[in-house]
Amino acid sequence: MPRISTKGQQMPESPIRKLVPYSEIAKKKGHKVYHLNIGQPDIKTPDVALNAVKNADITVLEYSHSAGFESYRNKLSSYYQTHGLPINTADIIITTGGSEALLFAMGSTMDQGDEIIIPEPFYANYNGFSTASGVNVVPVISTIDEGFALPPISAFEKLITPKTKAILICNPGNPTGYLYSKEEILQLAEIVKKHDLFLIADEVYREFIYDGEEHFSVMNVPGLEEHAIMIDSVSKRYSMCGARIGCIVSKNKEVMATAMKFAQARLSPPTYAQIASEAALETPQSYFDDVITEYKDRRDTLIAELQKIEGVKVATPKGAFYCIAKLPVKSADDFAQWLLESYDFNGETVMVAPAAGFYSTPGVGLDEVRIAYVLKKEDLIKSVEILKEALIAYNK
Amino acid sequence: MPRISTKGQQMPESPIRKLVPYSEIAKKKGHKVYHLNIGQPDIKTPDVALNAVKNADITVLEYSHSAGFESYRNKLSSYYQTHGLPINTADIIITTGGSEALLFAMGSTMDQGDEIIIPEPFYANYNGFSTASGVNVVPVISTIDEGFALPPISAFEKLITPKTKAILICNPGNPTGYLYSKEEILQLAEIVKKHDLFLIADEVYREFIYDGEEHFSVMNVPGLEEHAIMIDSVSKRYSMCGARIGCIVSKNKEVMATAMKFAQARLSPPTYAQIASEAALETPQSYFDDVITEYKDRRDTLIAELQKIEGVKVATPKGAFYCIAKLPVKSADDFAQWLLESYDFNGETVMVAPAAGFYSTPGVGLDEVRIAYVLKKEDLIKSVEILKEALIAYNK
Ligand SMILES: Cc1ncc(COP(=O)(O)O)c(C=O)c1O
Ligand SMILES: Cc1ncc(COP(=O)(O)O)c(C=O)c1O
Repeated sequence: MPRISTKGQQMPESPIRKLVPYSEIAKKKGHKVYHLNIGQPDIKTPDVALNAVKNADITVLEYSHSAGFESYRNKLSSYYQTHGLPINTADIIITTGGSEALLFAMGSTMDQGDEIIIPEPFYANYNGFSTASGVNVVPVISTIDEGFALPPISAFEKLITPKTKAILICNPGNPTGYLYSKEEILQLAEIVKKHDLFLIADEVYREFIYDGEEHFSVMNVPGLEEHAIMIDSVSKRYSMCGARIGCIVSKNKEVMATAMKFAQARLSPPTYAQIASEAALETPQSYFDDVITEYKDRRDTLIAELQKIEGVKVATPKGAFYCIAKLPVKSADDFAQWLLESYDFNGETVMVAPAAGFYSTPGVGLDEVRIAYVLKKEDLIKSVEILKEALIAYNK
Repeated sequence: MPRISTKGQQMPESPIRKLVPYSEIAKKKGHKVYHLNIGQPDIKTPDVALNAVKNADITVLEYSHSAGFESYRNKLSSYYQTHGLPINTADIIITTGGSEALLFAMGSTMDQGDEIIIPEPFYANYNGFSTASGVNVVPVISTIDEGFALPPISAFEKLITPKTKAILICNPGNPTGYLYSKEEILQLAEIVKKHDLFLIADEVYREFIYDGEEHFSVMNVPGLEEHAIMIDSVSKRYSMCGARIGCIVSKNKEVMATAMKFAQARLSPPTYAQIASEAALETPQSYFDDVITEYKDRRDTLIAELQKIEGVKVATPKGAFYCIAKLPVKSADDFAQWLLESYDFNGETVMVAPAAGFYSTPGVGLDEVRIAYVLKKEDLIKSVEILKEALIAYNK
């Protein structure tokens, strides 16, 4: 019998995959499960995007340009410029989700055995893309006690080897909700310039910033043009995760020419989704204002409620729609499974993502969970109430 | 300045990429260019698919299951069973085009430095997917003199090393149009079983078979269950290349579990495109009958016209919509460029794909071109007339 690849064996499972059978058990028992574990927003997709697809006049559903519709890239560059990012059409390749942009970025810059430094906890699929690309993840730890701020630059310096090719950050962060300050980005800029590395910034949550803070993009650092690679996506911005449209952005012409070869091999990004994404650029500001108000409200509610629970520690997220909560349990993994398998509060329970899957260092974050606030406020309040009761019951 | 990856440097360009600037020149001169170089059919996409998207009632455009809609996988398995392929829902993962299915197949079965044997000439992007996966392509030559039949099994045997993990075939073939016989598939089945290899069969042109011949799938070989991986796509079947939907199919549970990990990392295939693809399964048989009649007619016309040109040799394709033509020139590359840059026949010219890009062995196929018959019959006749006149002028 032929054998699968070592790489395939090493491909990580999603951190909540192990829990899926237990959520089935909860459902079979007739328990209502509040899903705090997922990053799929419940926010309505803008009508302008949905209608563009409804009204598209297609006879032959053709491949598009491998870099995406030119009209879309032009409008997208205008959009970035309106938002203060000096990005031209030539700096953009449209991809199948931010996911594919991450794969192209890694493939274009790194070879088998190369190393990428990533502050942990980080978006778990960075592990999958790294494994698929043959790249080794070198984590640098950020802690809940520091609110998941950028680790000191000296911590990065210590990890840099001749194999190091890039630093990858997520800003604002999934799962931390941390927003890097301008000063932190400038520190990173210095170190990548000093060591001739790429700085890959996953900015897919750029619009989700609260409390009047400002997002500072790697595309805004003068002198970083050859180093900066930005990853973007329409998934969260317009609540259109199912479109599967993102982009890779860089001023480094060699990187873009190389990413383009990866793009050509897979022919084109999806056509319907590009129609939706191009139209989504017309989404009125009021849509975003409403969405941000909604998420801020949810965040405030969630954090306030979580902080009422004895023994729970949480760092207030400044962006995105996740937070990491430290629970008074030894194994968040076991607790999350128990919540689904053995617990209910008046017929209801919650599903949370054990945070260990977001760390690369073994044994770290074992008592933490990631909570996504993509549910309605009332449901969030209910969920935290269940969590509180569950912690009492579990710890008995 | 940070450097791109070696892999990125090695990523091949598309075989017609070099010609694109010359086609711009032809257009600037006001010359009409007949595109014999592309695989984008002009056939109408079935209304049932287009209407399903128009009528889809979407409020939040959500991620789908990473393996694709369950409803779609169920119906797709029924579709295969109706066509005599014993494929169950669990044997299918929906991918973003056949392209992604090829990437998943390689990633799941091969590591850096492993070898895949592919009869050449082959679909040029196999090179790109192999490079991206760190896999080395080992070509085994098939020739126009043999009509691109399967090379003798002894030729495969000679190439097998401890690094060999798979044989990849395209059936029917792009760019050859060759349809492997049942006997040829059974020979391949024997050799992969003997050497514990995977047999990856790209069957995206399965429906495009002429002259009453029958397609014999690797999924139909008893005892090959653990070895066979089928690649499929809706791109050509329903003329919906822009959807970006395909699938990877195998009975090997380890392969499917591994491919699933790759699928989970990139979250999901595109939602709109799945709606279109699921609906496309309702396409009436009359649609296919018409399409096959049309392609057969085009093929017969193209081949008949080509054979009238002195010095041109062509193997009659039994499937797909490409053929390889051997021209009385030394360098098809130079000829193709000259056609665009320096030639016109009454203000018209043709663009062909030099076949060297479909061979992996350097120096082979230099006098061959690939011609796609995705144009209307009248245009094909015109195109071949231009080609004939051009060859006379070029060889003067
Ligand atoms: C941090 C981060 N990056 C990238 C992605 C990939 O998203 P997509 O491929 O839908 O654009 C996600 C999705 O959740 C994410 O959270
Ligand atoms: C032989 C072959 N395989 C795979 C593909 C990939 O097609 P897609 O990704 O559109 O399914 C093509 C496209 O032309 C092809 O010719």
